[in-house]
Amino acid sequence: MSGKIYGVGVGPGDPELLTLKAHRLIVAADVIAYPAPDNGDSFARRIVADYITAGTREIPMVVPMRTERFPAQDVYDAGAAEILAAVRAGQNVVVLCEGDPFFYGSFMYLFARLSGDVEIEVVPGVSSLGAVAAAAQTPLCAREETLSVLPATLDEGELIERLSRANAVAMMKIGRHFAKAKRAIAAAGLADRAVFVSHASLPNQNACPLAQAPDTAPYFSMIVIPGRDAHV
Amino acid sequence: MSGKIYGVGVGPGDPELLTLKAHRLIVAADVIAYPAPDNGDSFARRIVADYITAGTREIPMVVPMRTERFPAQDVYDAGAAEILAAVRAGQNVVVLCEGDPFFYGSFMYLFARLSGDVEIEVVPGVSSLGAVAAAAQTPLCAREETLSVLPATLDEGELIERLSRANAVAMMKIGRHFAKAKRAIAAAGLADRAVFVSHASLPNQNACPLAQAPDTAPYFSMIVIPGRDAHV
Repeated sequence: MSGKIYGVGVGPGDPELLTLKAHRLIVAADVIAYPAPDNGDSFARRIVADYITAGTREIPMVVPMRTERFPAQDVYDAGAAEILAAVRAGQNVVVLCEGDPFFYGSFMYLFARLSGDVEIEVVPGVSSLGAVAAAAQTPLCAREETLSVLPATLDEGELIERLSRANAVAMMKIGRHFAKAKRAIAAAGLADRAVFVSHASLPNQNACPLAQAPDTAPYFSMIVIPGRDAHV
Repeated sequence: MSGKIYGVGVGPGDPELLTLKAHRLIVAADVIAYPAPDNGDSFARRIVADYITAGTREIPMVVPMRTERFPAQDVYDAGAAEILAAVRAGQNVVVLCEGDPFFYGSFMYLFARLSGDVEIEVVPGVSSLGAVAAAAQTPLCAREETLSVLPATLDEGELIERLSRANAVAMMKIGRHFAKAKRAIAAAGLADRAVFVSHASLPNQNACPLAQAPDTAPYFSMIVIPGRDAHV
């Protein structure tokens, strides 16, 4: 009898922002799998470390950070094969996903390889969007406003154009694109409403007006521009 | 000694998609408050019904449905006053919010009235975005794609324009705007990738290609158009 794969969102960082369902599945899992950088801990695993039952088998998928933008196909090929073998042997495999599995998550690389072959259930999680708005102490969007989620990796011209047409904005993947992101926001005339948030929901969370942000931004940071209707 | 207000996201509908933190706060609350329509149950309260401790005081804020788009100011005035009195008397008040409190939530009306006067902590929840993508069995967006969240209440011309520039799309608040939404998606040439989802995460969940959707859509439905990079 075949097991099942669960793609489980583990939320933005605070272990208490796991869902009851994610908690139940992780505690009961035969196998857990997760992406890990080659230069440190897996963030997804760290979030749930206290919930993993002793004896649970672990499948870390070590992703070289240099090729982050061109996902390491061989790593996901090997991970998918190992997960598939466990499922075929009747085990349930929980794949840990930072935030929500289907919101810019690397889980899609496993999903693309495995869906069709086995049963996959996706368990949504608290995404960084909600955590960042909570940290910034501001509603994100309201009523008839649109919300534009923009990766800061886009080039400056496209960022400015999209910002100029936007109502509410959440800009992700800041990291080394911080200076460009700030220039684009200023050019679109939105600097006064912009809030910088790093490490949302974690003990070292920082939220401040963008103008007062530090000079450099970690990968886990975001800029939110609440819509005018949502601005309190 | 003053109590505290918690604006707590209770997720999209499945009671197991509550966070551990939301569960802990609801179980321990002195008072819970929530919006309720004047023609039925409160959806937020129904999600957490099994977690409410006997004896917890409840403050329903009954919102007339006819004036939904122009929130009933007097209802939130009265609710805010009642909540404030409880907090000043030393009680902790948990305000239940469908999905995530700061993502198109009516919690903003209370937040606008109460922030500054008392301590308010917002606890993010699983938003409908993640639940809908999980139901549709498709990643929403990936890599450098933008995500546009569009209320279907916008007029048709604006919908078409925004859809034409979009990568991934989540269209909310479908309900009686369903026919217009479908016309706009067809006009923007996106009908083939569009997925219709109603009642995500609930027992009566329905997910299908938009072309196969029923003729009418409930308020709790959404259309998602995954980005091309996310399309599996």
